Amino acid sequence: MTAQAEPTVADLGEDELIASFVPLLPRGRTTLVPTGDDAAVIAAPDGRFCVSTDVLVEGHHFRLAWGTGADVGWRAAMQNLADIAAMGAEPTSMVVSMVLPPPTPVSWLHDFCRGLSEACGPLGVGVDGGDLSAGEQLVVAVTVHGDLAGRDPVLRSGARPGDVVAHSGLLGRAAAGHALLASGRRGGSDETLIRDFLRPRPALSAGPAAARAGATAMMDVSDGLLRDAGRLARRSGAILTLDPPAASVPDAVAALAGVAARLETDPTMWILGGGEDHGMLATFPAGTALPEGFTVLGRVAAASAEHPAGTVLVGDAVPAVRPGWDHFRS
Amino acid sequence: MTAQAEPTVADLGEDELIASFVPLLPRGRTTLVPTGDDAAVIAAPDGRFCVSTDVLVEGHHFRLAWGTGADVGWRAAMQNLADIAAMGAEPTSMVVSMVLPPPTPVSWLHDFCRGLSEACGPLGVGVDGGDLSAGEQLVVAVTVHGDLAGRDPVLRSGARPGDVVAHSGLLGRAAAGHALLASGRRGGSDETLIRDFLRPRPALSAGPAAARAGATAMMDVSDGLLRDAGRLARRSGAILTLDPPAASVPDAVAALAGVAARLETDPTMWILGGGEDHGMLATFPAGTALPEGFTVLGRVAAASAEHPAGTVLVGDAVPAVRPGWDHFRS
Repeated sequence: MTAQAEPTVADLGEDELIASFVPLLPRGRTTLVPTGDDAAVIAAPDGRFCVSTDVLVEGHHFRLAWGTGADVGWRAAMQNLADIAAMGAEPTSMVVSMVLPPPTPVSWLHDFCRGLSEACGPLGVGVDGGDLSAGEQLVVAVTVHGDLAGRDPVLRSGARPGDVVAHSGLLGRAAAGHALLASGRRGGSDETLIRDFLRPRPALSAGPAAARAGATAMMDVSDGLLRDAGRLARRSGAILTLDPPAASVPDAVAALAGVAARLETDPTMWILGGGEDHGMLATFPAGTALPEGFTVLGRVAAASAEHPAGTVLVGDAVPAVRPGWDHFRS
Repeated sequence: MTAQAEPTVADLGEDELIASFVPLLPRGRTTLVPTGDDAAVIAAPDGRFCVSTDVLVEGHHFRLAWGTGADVGWRAAMQNLADIAAMGAEPTSMVVSMVLPPPTPVSWLHDFCRGLSEACGPLGVGVDGGDLSAGEQLVVAVTVHGDLAGRDPVLRSGARPGDVVAHSGLLGRAAAGHALLASGRRGGSDETLIRDFLRPRPALSAGPAAARAGATAMMDVSDGLLRDAGRLARRSGAILTLDPPAASVPDAVAALAGVAARLETDPTMWILGGGEDHGMLATFPAGTALPEGFTVLGRVAAASAEHPAGTVLVGDAVPAVRPGWDHFRS
């Protein structure tokens, strides 16, 4: 008996490969014509739909050695679902294109599909189409759609001086998990941080809840709190003043302190500079009863000659934190 | 004075890069919230939308040396727009993700955006979002949306024995253009074929026209006539019998004969086996007045023990033509 090599995507024809994983993908509650035709047909009961797209590249956004195919599928789905939630919408449907190096095991691809399904299925979100190509580097491109259920979308541009800045979700934990994986110095008690990096769990319902509560602006934090807050401020023609994390999110700082000390860094850097937790950053008129799960981080203020639109102050200083992800420079 | 090197995408930050090309992209007639927020918002007047996605990889689907960035942008758009037309829908909106090697010139990216715009702008289709990442290999992932204007989608599965098989658009010309580029043996009079490969011009209006005329099944020909016809037949539980190209499309055969002779191949192979012209392959009940531009290629017949569902006969034989593109095997 000879040992059988694990089949790779190059061992199957394109049609056979597709047929092997389509049954692993969920059909959504708005799916009218599922994957398999020239296009899928999706219900848009609102008469509008939201659409967002993200691309993940092996070696840049994930490393095969760091987790399973299901982890990659989960994260690809969740970071896109968070973009829909950040408009105040409910996600309905996604399509997924992939570039696969020919030696990719079929089992990895199937595991990836299971991760997509674990993320989307419970939400009633369909995986309603996709495309595959061979290539040198593994790439995942997800496009996600959502329904506004009759509400106005919550844009980045609506924050007004006097509004409260609030956040729902984790801060700094994905960055800490990433730092542990990158350092190779992970230990037993670090696994929850690594899981928060590999399997982000944004509070997706916080997006529509913020919209219902009257949020004036919202976005998801994907590239780091300071960098994303600066984008929201710039689009709103305002500045944001954030309280120091030790005051606004002391539990988050405390939970990262041990690992930060071991990696010889400051947990505040992860909280202010790290991305990929995909929490919801939103602004509300002063006095709004914030939806469950939101924590006040600061206030919106008027731009000035000293502090032009887009400035983010921490305490009363411009923080000396390196910015979050820049995919062409980092 | 030193010569200035052409700026690459690595020379600009991600935000600066995006700001540099967004003004080149068209806003669509259904765009409610354009690119720049967490998601775009698109009108879906029909209460449904069609969605399809395709990925193009440098070295597999295009080569930088073969054409301009605008050619790549045009083709990426058109092959997606054709998928929407093949449902009988009108395209409305697309989002485009890209993986760019850091040495990619900014001017190439801008040229790519102009190609997208040339394809989408005149149709009122918006380029309403996207994402960029660095990576080793240039990848373009397009997701396109369309509106059915109250019609039923025309699926691949509706062909019935007795229906007429018809096609609108070019056949074999993109394959001939590709063969010329791959052979390096192009000459002056071959430029129209190369242009048909680099800049496919599917008759997008033929899709909705076929739907209005009562097409029972439809798809766009992207992977080769025989392979795609086989998919339509299989999904319909039927077989297709096509007339020999010399009888059904004699002008197309004649127009390719010279180049085929020079490259020592048979033009019929390009017509039956070549893909990427993105014409509309549709079936209609016998006696239907075909929309302008459609040519009869054959008939739908019942499957049998000898010829199971999915069989495509040319004349009365199963043709010995190598199948079209298989991205993991070709």
